[in-house]
Amino acid sequence: MKQRMDYSAANCSVAAALSVVGEKWTLLVLREAFYGIKRFDEMQKVLGCARNVLSDRLATLVEAGILERSHYREHGQRERPEYHLSKKGSDLFVVLLALMQWGDQWLAKDGEPPVAVLHNGCGLAVFAEMRCADGHGPLTAKDIYAKPGPAAILNRRNDEVIGTVEGPRGDA
Amino acid sequence: MKQRMDYSAANCSVAAALSVVGEKWTLLVLREAFYGIKRFDEMQKVLGCARNVLSDRLATLVEAGILERSHYREHGQRERPEYHLSKKGSDLFVVLLALMQWGDQWLAKDGEPPVAVLHNGCGLAVFAEMRCADGHGPLTAKDIYAKPGPAAILNRRNDEVIGTVEGPRGDA
Repeated sequence: MKQRMDYSAANCSVAAALSVVGEKWTLLVLREAFYGIKRFDEMQKVLGCARNVLSDRLATLVEAGILERSHYREHGQRERPEYHLSKKGSDLFVVLLALMQWGDQWLAKDGEPPVAVLHNGCGLAVFAEMRCADGHGPLTAKDIYAKPGPAAILNRRNDEVIGTVEGPRGDA
Repeated sequence: MKQRMDYSAANCSVAAALSVVGEKWTLLVLREAFYGIKRFDEMQKVLGCARNVLSDRLATLVEAGILERSHYREHGQRERPEYHLSKKGSDLFVVLLALMQWGDQWLAKDGEPPVAVLHNGCGLAVFAEMRCADGHGPLTAKDIYAKPGPAAILNRRNDEVIGTVEGPRGDA
């Protein structure tokens, strides 16, 4: 597709996001942070990953400003770190929810979700969905197209369509 | 957090989803499929990854039923494969959009998006957002809680709250 070939993937925000969180353990550490797990030993126990891997991932997430480190001390114990989500980290929840619902729909046994994610206000299930700024939706991939944005690196006019986003074959 | 510790992460749909698409190149291959790139050589050119890596990732995505392989033949050339998104693959677009908007907001220079994702119908920007089944939203992490779902592996009552989803500190 010529249009796509004319613009650069060098500054893609998907790639940028994946360079920070695009590692399986990193997203699973975040999953536990969202479930309220704050302490190294608890996180290590639920994840079952090697301690040095967890230690690396927590350090990466703190350095990226996604988790914030504070400290607690239990009676008679030495001071230990705790990890809390920052606003930047909390904003990643929609990514995890989107992954979770795709896994529920396409990979879970009988499509039964292991975890129910619910709205505090009304107790109903919460979904990651796509809507436009005018509220149209929920949209699917075939309702959507992509254009170079303000920060695109390209050698073509800024109002040209890169390509329609590809829906399933035969749906067009 | 005791509640979280009482239920298993063994059948988590986030982990299941990541075991299929949780690899940086895999998600970038999908990004190109959404932009309409179908052919190996074009994909290799825009991604700039090694040919054997791309070949592996395409095979994984076909095996997982996310991409479907068909064939084309240009005049005087041998038959070559093309890759199209299946419905299962197309449903992943919300994951990529959520990653993209997080990258735009938190990682892009001056918050300027390299790519604009727009609604076919009205041309306005499209967002991945969280809403409940009753349409309340857009919700943030602190509006949401998690409970064991129908397929949870746990040793506790099914109506107990696992934990509130953790918002940014101080927002509670």
